[in-house]
Amino acid sequence: MSAIKQEVAPLELFPPLQPPGRYLFGPGPTMVDPRVYDALSKPIVGHLDAYFIQVMGDIQQLLRTAFGTSHGATLVISGTGSAGMEAAVANFVEPEAKFMVFANGYFSDRITEMAKRHAAQVVRFEKPWGETFGDDEAAEFIRREKPKVVAYVHAETSTGALQPGTAICGAAHDVGALVIADCVTSLGGLAVDFDQTGIDVAYSCTQKGLSCPPGLSPMAISSRAMDWLRARTSLVRSWYLDLKLIHDYSTVSHRYHHTAPISMFYALREALLVIAQEGIENRWERHRRCHQVFVKGVEAMGLRLHVPVGYRIPTLNTVGVPKDVDEAKVRKRLLDEAGIEVAGGFGPLAGKVFRIGVMGPLATEENVQFFLKEFSRALTVEGYSI
Amino acid sequence: MSAIKQEVAPLELFPPLQPPGRYLFGPGPTMVDPRVYDALSKPIVGHLDAYFIQVMGDIQQLLRTAFGTSHGATLVISGTGSAGMEAAVANFVEPEAKFMVFANGYFSDRITEMAKRHAAQVVRFEKPWGETFGDDEAAEFIRREKPKVVAYVHAETSTGALQPGTAICGAAHDVGALVIADCVTSLGGLAVDFDQTGIDVAYSCTQKGLSCPPGLSPMAISSRAMDWLRARTSLVRSWYLDLKLIHDYSTVSHRYHHTAPISMFYALREALLVIAQEGIENRWERHRRCHQVFVKGVEAMGLRLHVPVGYRIPTLNTVGVPKDVDEAKVRKRLLDEAGIEVAGGFGPLAGKVFRIGVMGPLATEENVQFFLKEFSRALTVEGYSI
Repeated sequence: MSAIKQEVAPLELFPPLQPPGRYLFGPGPTMVDPRVYDALSKPIVGHLDAYFIQVMGDIQQLLRTAFGTSHGATLVISGTGSAGMEAAVANFVEPEAKFMVFANGYFSDRITEMAKRHAAQVVRFEKPWGETFGDDEAAEFIRREKPKVVAYVHAETSTGALQPGTAICGAAHDVGALVIADCVTSLGGLAVDFDQTGIDVAYSCTQKGLSCPPGLSPMAISSRAMDWLRARTSLVRSWYLDLKLIHDYSTVSHRYHHTAPISMFYALREALLVIAQEGIENRWERHRRCHQVFVKGVEAMGLRLHVPVGYRIPTLNTVGVPKDVDEAKVRKRLLDEAGIEVAGGFGPLAGKVFRIGVMGPLATEENVQFFLKEFSRALTVEGYSI
Repeated sequence: MSAIKQEVAPLELFPPLQPPGRYLFGPGPTMVDPRVYDALSKPIVGHLDAYFIQVMGDIQQLLRTAFGTSHGATLVISGTGSAGMEAAVANFVEPEAKFMVFANGYFSDRITEMAKRHAAQVVRFEKPWGETFGDDEAAEFIRREKPKVVAYVHAETSTGALQPGTAICGAAHDVGALVIADCVTSLGGLAVDFDQTGIDVAYSCTQKGLSCPPGLSPMAISSRAMDWLRARTSLVRSWYLDLKLIHDYSTVSHRYHHTAPISMFYALREALLVIAQEGIENRWERHRRCHQVFVKGVEAMGLRLHVPVGYRIPTLNTVGVPKDVDEAKVRKRLLDEAGIEVAGGFGPLAGKVFRIGVMGPLATEENVQFFLKEFSRALTVEGYSI
């Protein structure tokens, strides 16, 4: 034990936890309602306790409204949005299955990477980051390729572009394919319309439109996809993300699969209740309204959005960086001087856009005006003439 | 949108979150220090914020003491203990690699299942649940089988048995194998002695010996294992659990991999600080002392422990169910009448043992006496004569 003693780090190296106050105007994590923080700090019960089973059931029911599904199963993965993405890929890909990705941003590349790791034969329809796919070209590609699974990103966090899904889902179903939709940035902030669009598998996260801290991934699964999964005979490559086992634990038998993150489930239930009390359509409308105020504001500053009107995610704006302005310096200034976090672009959009989220508690006209004022100031100091 | 409206569940179905008070005397989740709940409810910052990077760094440093490692890398998986298990298996197994499991309980079966899903060729040394492996027989088996990876469960949650690892690690290294140790139930409650034992990959959870809510999986990785991982050329089947990517995000470049569960990291940092302030060796000693009080108490009631002296996990006791007593009824009575949660056995131990954890804040003589009194009462009412 003497060998261990010398490893003990002096306690004075670890000051009390005191996170700096931040206005989280990035793509996520975003601001959290105080009620959700309260829920996080409630005493835990066991993961098989009747009370916790009820909490899981409540979440599943509240998620149906958020996803817009009456026939789909809803459940929660005990990992972040990327765990949900991998669960979607791992469970609905069998080795050598043809897997089609609409590739127009960072997260469709991530889906591609995962599909390869799960031994799919991947085909991609590629477009520059920020563009979207038209109904006809999307449908035509699917009809030609006849994949088993089609994946697209509903709201692409890296570009700010919104991809309509109805034509994709229609064509996919025509060729017998299942459709996976990445709804990480859409759920809670805008309509996902799961049933109406025809999505088979959707996953999201907790820290964007749901205004909850990160840590869980809510999912919706159509009855068609559920039937497919039940009929699947090959083992899913991931045990932790095996949806049949998770569905059984969370919804059917409540038989132990893993020890669910109790506190995070409390938080998610509370976040969904906050949303339900506002009314989800009111919430979507509030985000749309704030988006308009935001766009008007940045356009008045002479800035332009990266994504054309009609394809913009209302909760996440990609604003072009003006010529000769160092976007990293603007972001640093915002953080240091106003406690405001926004994100930069990456990949082909590195240095070219700011990614600015206006979600949840921040989506009020007052907060948007506060942001615009600080943004304008930081840009000006960094040499931009408005 | 009218199609969605009809799906909205009436709000009166969802009362305010008010978890019942529980004394969590089960195998986990266990009781949480109030300071950890406070930490959970602190405002979040971004997952790439310098403050959060510091929080991750603090956790890594504090984990070195808990694991007992000076040369190993420490990091945290954004999933529960089972995600840590799958990370260990997925990253250190290449397809067709010979993977040896010491199988004497539920969690070694789970490791087996995961290893198969990750395409290992699994060989098992099997013993009845609750037994452990002697040094000579363990070493002999390894020398004969010459596996690439050896896995054992340090503290088997399903049986209460503690498996010494020194002989296993020695023999494994003699044949060039890496050793994975499941430390889910040991970390924080008793010495893991990572370096001294010679473990290459250890994973744990937050909700047992660390007295934090469930949701994360701390890991330690030896420099030998890290070198092996860096040299690995085949892709790990899981992207979410790819340790090279996670290590890079959390320790090296801090480049985005996934959005870490900020609040849970706050909680884990606080839980580790609570432990560091007590002194980890004092904590282990406190658990040992309470274990002795507990054993003395149940033996005085005429009960016997499932695991022989010398191989018992001090923080988790498996107590034999007396003849003609329905253990489920006893557990229900404890829960309903005293708010005490304990667990039953499963698999071959179903109906045969109670699994009773005495960990963290519950590990005081006063709490043990409180438990013994209630346990004795419940047993008596259910027909047991003490």
